[in-house]
Amino acid sequence: MTVDGLQSETRTGKYLVYMADHEGHISIERAADLLNLGRRAVRRVPSRKDFTMDPEALETMIRADLARGDQPFCVVAQVGSINTGAIDRLDVIADICERNGLWFHADGACGAVGAMLPEKMEMYKGLDRANSVTLDPHKWLFIPYECGCLLVREPEQLRRAFSLSAPYLRGALPTEYTGLDYFEYGPEMSRGFRALKVWMTLRHYGVEGYRKLLRQGIRCAEHLDERVRASVDFERLHKPNLYIYSFRYAPTADQKATQLSDQDRARVDARLDRLNQHIADEIQARGIAFIMTTKIHGRTVLRMSICSHRTTLADIDAVFDALTQIGRELYPEED
Amino acid sequence: MTVDGLQSETRTGKYLVYMADHEGHISIERAADLLNLGRRAVRRVPSRKDFTMDPEALETMIRADLARGDQPFCVVAQVGSINTGAIDRLDVIADICERNGLWFHADGACGAVGAMLPEKMEMYKGLDRANSVTLDPHKWLFIPYECGCLLVREPEQLRRAFSLSAPYLRGALPTEYTGLDYFEYGPEMSRGFRALKVWMTLRHYGVEGYRKLLRQGIRCAEHLDERVRASVDFERLHKPNLYIYSFRYAPTADQKATQLSDQDRARVDARLDRLNQHIADEIQARGIAFIMTTKIHGRTVLRMSICSHRTTLADIDAVFDALTQIGRELYPEED
Repeated sequence: MTVDGLQSETRTGKYLVYMADHEGHISIERAADLLNLGRRAVRRVPSRKDFTMDPEALETMIRADLARGDQPFCVVAQVGSINTGAIDRLDVIADICERNGLWFHADGACGAVGAMLPEKMEMYKGLDRANSVTLDPHKWLFIPYECGCLLVREPEQLRRAFSLSAPYLRGALPTEYTGLDYFEYGPEMSRGFRALKVWMTLRHYGVEGYRKLLRQGIRCAEHLDERVRASVDFERLHKPNLYIYSFRYAPTADQKATQLSDQDRARVDARLDRLNQHIADEIQARGIAFIMTTKIHGRTVLRMSICSHRTTLADIDAVFDALTQIGRELYPEED
Repeated sequence: MTVDGLQSETRTGKYLVYMADHEGHISIERAADLLNLGRRAVRRVPSRKDFTMDPEALETMIRADLARGDQPFCVVAQVGSINTGAIDRLDVIADICERNGLWFHADGACGAVGAMLPEKMEMYKGLDRANSVTLDPHKWLFIPYECGCLLVREPEQLRRAFSLSAPYLRGALPTEYTGLDYFEYGPEMSRGFRALKVWMTLRHYGVEGYRKLLRQGIRCAEHLDERVRASVDFERLHKPNLYIYSFRYAPTADQKATQLSDQDRARVDARLDRLNQHIADEIQARGIAFIMTTKIHGRTVLRMSICSHRTTLADIDAVFDALTQIGRELYPEED
């Protein structure tokens, strides 16, 4: 942060940030907007089939941008993507950031807390090397809205960016408080005491309590995946690894129609898009469950984010049965 | 907001924002930091003796900056400055903004709500012409922390700046809700329901209830001013117009010492600076009142922000008597 910001006359090239082209959360674009970097400063790195960033493509892009005189400064890795819970290869991305002197930010809003599960630890390898990690305790820690959180390796870097002083803020009287003055470490001046609800809930559940709840959510997603695979009406889109699961209503007849012409394929796909949206609307309208759609590879699909600590396998069965029922009502065989 | 932000290659000159050089709140510098404009983009306009922005100086600066090829875009007027409650000449500033095509922002965090008092309305002339007004309901509306608020004339301008869409946010199902989707009008995505506490409190007090409380705060500041003027120990620094009042412990002997050499004057001033700080520390340490210091014209002074709806004239008397007592203890005549 210089006194001239991006308006410095000596600045050369563009500051660039990198994230996967699949499912990157729009909060990154919003941050680029706020920082006046422009949305084009968010460079989208090709993804692999498992919805994670392709590290080789990342490094190729960084090299090309550096060669053009631009200034790559940050890579945003996804730790639980919004549609499929995909976790980027954190260790490899950490290596790339290290080699190129870039800030390694892990967007763990959806999934970082899963790192507390020993059986999932392998997926999170490298998370401990991030310079900063986003958490959303109002997601998988079950805290009431709102409660965003940023963990940083070196708080002093935040202080250097945010510290401002003013005579009316100075307290000359020494107090017993030796902690941080948070207004010097972030954009907010007056702050509500959001940390209280987090602290209380952490104390209430404890690590073992949370592990139990997280496993319950994962088990629900796995169960949903089992139901999808066993069904002739739905198509599986990804392996479940956390609590977020996307899938598609696509009766077998349509799925198997590989012999269709491109034009017919497009027609069937467009119809299934409308149908999936219709099913999501209908299950909401009937008051059964709050299920939304999202896009995967350009197609409208159903998405379930099982992040209530009260959701059980029986709930999953009830919702899945309702989805099946609604799909068949809306898509009679004679249609 | 362009796709390239401040990194656009076609950008010429610097974007500049203007505010009074006296007492401008650091939130404006923070905003300049966040937007990567750089703190130097905040141009400080000379103030008049009453701590308000000098409109002629403002227009002169704007013309000079335009002539140099820079891009003035915003003027921040103070509506209740942090140390003295000063209110800039809003109508004149509105004219200047209109003539030059600039955004007229009124920083009313401390004082804008005073506009509800008919007897104070004259001071607020022109406030209704602002493009945006900052309110801090946690200040003079007595709402618990935190509760910042921005009023804008044309919400569509916010939507154009902040709107982002994502497939996982789209709700295709029509609902009865016809209001704004706030995540499209500001930086936050998930938002707590802060408006509830404001709405409830507004309903509870009503306009007449608030007028009574605001007048009580103003009356307290006026009473404090009367005590200061009647005292031989304190120096008056400004007329009280709202609930914020700054004054200085400066026994008459020192105040009257106009025949002092510059060097002696500086020595006395430095001593009074330490003394005022010491008095503020002491009244806090004794648990009597929370009074802080600030700087006015470079000197350390006492500042009282009487924005609790429970403060009475008797409290003011008790605090003022304690300040006098502490001052005399710390500054015995033989010293």
